[in-house]
Amino acid sequence: MRPDDANVAGNVHGGTILKMIEEAGAIISTRHCNSQNGERCVAALARVERTDFLSPMCIGEVAHVSAEITYTSKHSVEVQVNVMSENILTGTKKLTNKATLWYVPLSLKNVDKVLEVPPVVYSRHEQEEEGRKRYEAQKLERMETKWRNGDIVQPVLNPEPNTVSYSQSSLIHLVGPSDCTLHGFVHGGVTMKLMDEVAGIVAARHCKTNIVTASVDAINFHDKIRKGCVITISGRMTFTSNKSMEIEVLVDADPVVDNSQKRYRAASAFFTYVSLSQEGKSLPVPQLVPETEDEKKRFEEGKGRYLQMKAKRQGRTEPQP
Amino acid sequence: MRPDDANVAGNVHGGTILKMIEEAGAIISTRHCNSQNGERCVAALARVERTDFLSPMCIGEVAHVSAEITYTSKHSVEVQVNVMSENILTGTKKLTNKATLWYVPLSLKNVDKVLEVPPVVYSRHEQEEEGRKRYEAQKLERMETKWRNGDIVQPVLNPEPNTVSYSQSSLIHLVGPSDCTLHGFVHGGVTMKLMDEVAGIVAARHCKTNIVTASVDAINFHDKIRKGCVITISGRMTFTSNKSMEIEVLVDADPVVDNSQKRYRAASAFFTYVSLSQEGKSLPVPQLVPETEDEKKRFEEGKGRYLQMKAKRQGRTEPQP
Amino acid sequence: MRPDDANVAGNVHGGTILKMIEEAGAIISTRHCNSQNGERCVAALARVERTDFLSPMCIGEVAHVSAEITYTSKHSVEVQVNVMSENILTGTKKLTNKATLWYVPLSLKNVDKVLEVPPVVYSRHEQEEEGRKRYEAQKLERMETKWRNGDIVQPVLNPEPNTVSYSQSSLIHLVGPSDCTLHGFVHGGVTMKLMDEVAGIVAARHCKTNIVTASVDAINFHDKIRKGCVITISGRMTFTSNKSMEIEVLVDADPVVDNSQKRYRAASAFFTYVSLSQEGKSLPVPQLVPETEDEKKRFEEGKGRYLQMKAKRQGRTEPQP
Repeated sequence: MRPDDANVAGNVHGGTILKMIEEAGAIISTRHCNSQNGERCVAALARVERTDFLSPMCIGEVAHVSAEITYTSKHSVEVQVNVMSENILTGTKKLTNKATLWYVPLSLKNVDKVLEVPPVVYSRHEQEEEGRKRYEAQKLERMETKWRNGDIVQPVLNPEPNTVSYSQSSLIHLVGPSDCTLHGFVHGGVTMKLMDEVAGIVAARHCKTNIVTASVDAINFHDKIRKGCVITISGRMTFTSNKSMEIEVLVDADPVVDNSQKRYRAASAFFTYVSLSQEGKSLPVPQLVPETEDEKKRFEEGKGRYLQMKAKRQGRTEPQP
Repeated sequence: MRPDDANVAGNVHGGTILKMIEEAGAIISTRHCNSQNGERCVAALARVERTDFLSPMCIGEVAHVSAEITYTSKHSVEVQVNVMSENILTGTKKLTNKATLWYVPLSLKNVDKVLEVPPVVYSRHEQEEEGRKRYEAQKLERMETKWRNGDIVQPVLNPEPNTVSYSQSSLIHLVGPSDCTLHGFVHGGVTMKLMDEVAGIVAARHCKTNIVTASVDAINFHDKIRKGCVITISGRMTFTSNKSMEIEVLVDADPVVDNSQKRYRAASAFFTYVSLSQEGKSLPVPQLVPETEDEKKRFEEGKGRYLQMKAKRQGRTEPQP
Repeated sequence: MRPDDANVAGNVHGGTILKMIEEAGAIISTRHCNSQNGERCVAALARVERTDFLSPMCIGEVAHVSAEITYTSKHSVEVQVNVMSENILTGTKKLTNKATLWYVPLSLKNVDKVLEVPPVVYSRHEQEEEGRKRYEAQKLERMETKWRNGDIVQPVLNPEPNTVSYSQSSLIHLVGPSDCTLHGFVHGGVTMKLMDEVAGIVAARHCKTNIVTASVDAINFHDKIRKGCVITISGRMTFTSNKSMEIEVLVDADPVVDNSQKRYRAASAFFTYVSLSQEGKSLPVPQLVPETEDEKKRFEEGKGRYLQMKAKRQGRTEPQP
């Protein structure tokens, strides 16, 4: 991990880690989908399940990324990726991330055509059944997020501190050759890195301290972003608990040189950030003041997600019967 | 702004800012030129007007770049770009740059063909007239800079400190895919970043202190640089005042794999640098010692530009009648 | 040199320097091979001779890279590259590297076809004869390294400190557009930078201190790496002397989307690293404990190379008859 991978306090950006995770996922799923004779293809990221950042990574540490295919449906591949940080001077290793990603194989001749996935071989029979349940659950959830697509982040003049308008931020990026796969669309990992960058700016503006990514909610990639697009990544704070902030990030793609195609929503997700003191202890977060009806509605929804996740975590730490 | 965007003292390179300005200009002018049905095109940078770096930007700050189309002629677009720096921890915002750029739309089918620009709609009638005056003025100035094209920076053995030969510098760069637009020529912003890099090395060699870009004179892009070229960027000091240095930067392109085409001058400009103490105060600059007749001539010309600019600045701060 | 070019102690990575050397070599040899009318070509790196890192380079210094063609055979070009570091604040210049590289010209129409090289003009007659000897010697050595190709670095569970298994490391990289020439294969310099990165991780894991590249043994590029490949770079320690470590690095390419082609060995080399104290003094290195028969054999071979090089160096410093 190099200086450019990290913030001023030396903590590696969550987006850098997400980018590495996606690169590993893209390699293993592209390799799997081409493992049988047939039409050549490239795997495109469709969804990342909710993922927690379990411990911070620092400049100078070595990141270990390992990936495994855990389920295949007819047209999609589920990949499990683990990230470990290693301090090569002390030898200490820590698990920093576990992530689950879904890919679909697109034909190299026509990237709008989805190909079939060769079935993976399971070591235990139940693995297939468990995988199918995860597949159905994510399919359902993808449907539900579609309604959010029309929403847009609008700038507001002279907003008050601690309001949503005060910290909301947008970033515009012209897609270049190094953002893209060899087949002309943007790597999912590049998009996630930009999403984390915007979420980090929103969080820093809100609490004016050193902030780090704590978790990312499921990210759905509604559509490919092709080269030649301008992408707008917008972030706004939706909810704060005592020690965490939830930021919604929306990604819109705008084909500049091709006005036959309209601007479209390419991805969206919720990022959770925490604020850290100079000693790395988590700090209280200034409470968000939702103003409009929409902001209040989003705050309640965020609170719902927060309480649900808290309950899940507590459930996990209780003794098993 | 990340560590790699800045020098060792934490000041963001002028070249990094110029690159962002150009990216914004390229997006807005490409979008405008494709706003009517007709042949698809991409906007190529033709000229950047003189621009001042009003206040330094630092690592960790967020840069806000906003662009607006202010005039269109038959074949060119004028874009006004403003850059603000924001310290997201304190909330302080500062205007760091105002720049004016000229673009021409090139056909995607044939990048040597210039297309027509859809006219912009002005909110006040006088805007068109004022724009036309700026258009005519820059056209005249572009003509005048053509004569400089034959000039070359030659290395000198064992030069004395404070001479032109002592600090002059050249940088060679092989144009790669990530330097280029999707249509095979180098982004104007990439060229400007390299120009600033060379100018900064010349300035640091001359005064051996922390130096920052104070302003850039008009940059004319005489010709596109295509991929597969090697570019040579040369810088030499032309003039020093008590507290500033003027450096001329010349960009030459050399098509390595295509010897039907000769080496040609692609761009040229004057950069002004100042020297800063560790507390950020401006320091006196060692006086340049011009030796040859050419160097003395360039020194006098630089002095002329310096005095003219000083007079302009003083004129601006005086009360209006 | 920027923060991202260097390790945490501020020493520029050997790999960054190797990448610059190769860029200079590629420019000069491509230019030479296209200097006559005929089929257009691009020069591909075939071999780098053993090179020493004579003095460390630091962040903020300017690197000067100069290249010269010293010999041409029918199908290959020998380039001599020198690297100087310049502290632009103090004006101090130091020779940091001298390297010899061999290139072959590949047709732009068909990168599997090797073209003929226009002969270089020698200023002294003996230069041609000396060059031919170097050409024959490297040809012989290239042959000898072929046998190593089948070897693979296997991970071991819970290895003991100071063993080969403890510090061995692998890095997987998906080849992207910015790693490649415009003709679709990976720059030799990009491969060397990744090789040095892996060797550095092996060295740091073994001795847990600040480490720097001291020298690189001849690197042979057995085959081009095309875009769309995944490359695996593996490093393992082979030998330690009192104050140095030798690390073998193997590069394998795996064409992911094209399963007609098998995984192949693309390059291999030995890197020598030294361990430095905070004051930049060289430190004793923990002795490597070879366990398997293969490891013991490689240790003895490494010792042979070490003693041979030591003898050569002492020979050079003795008074000439």
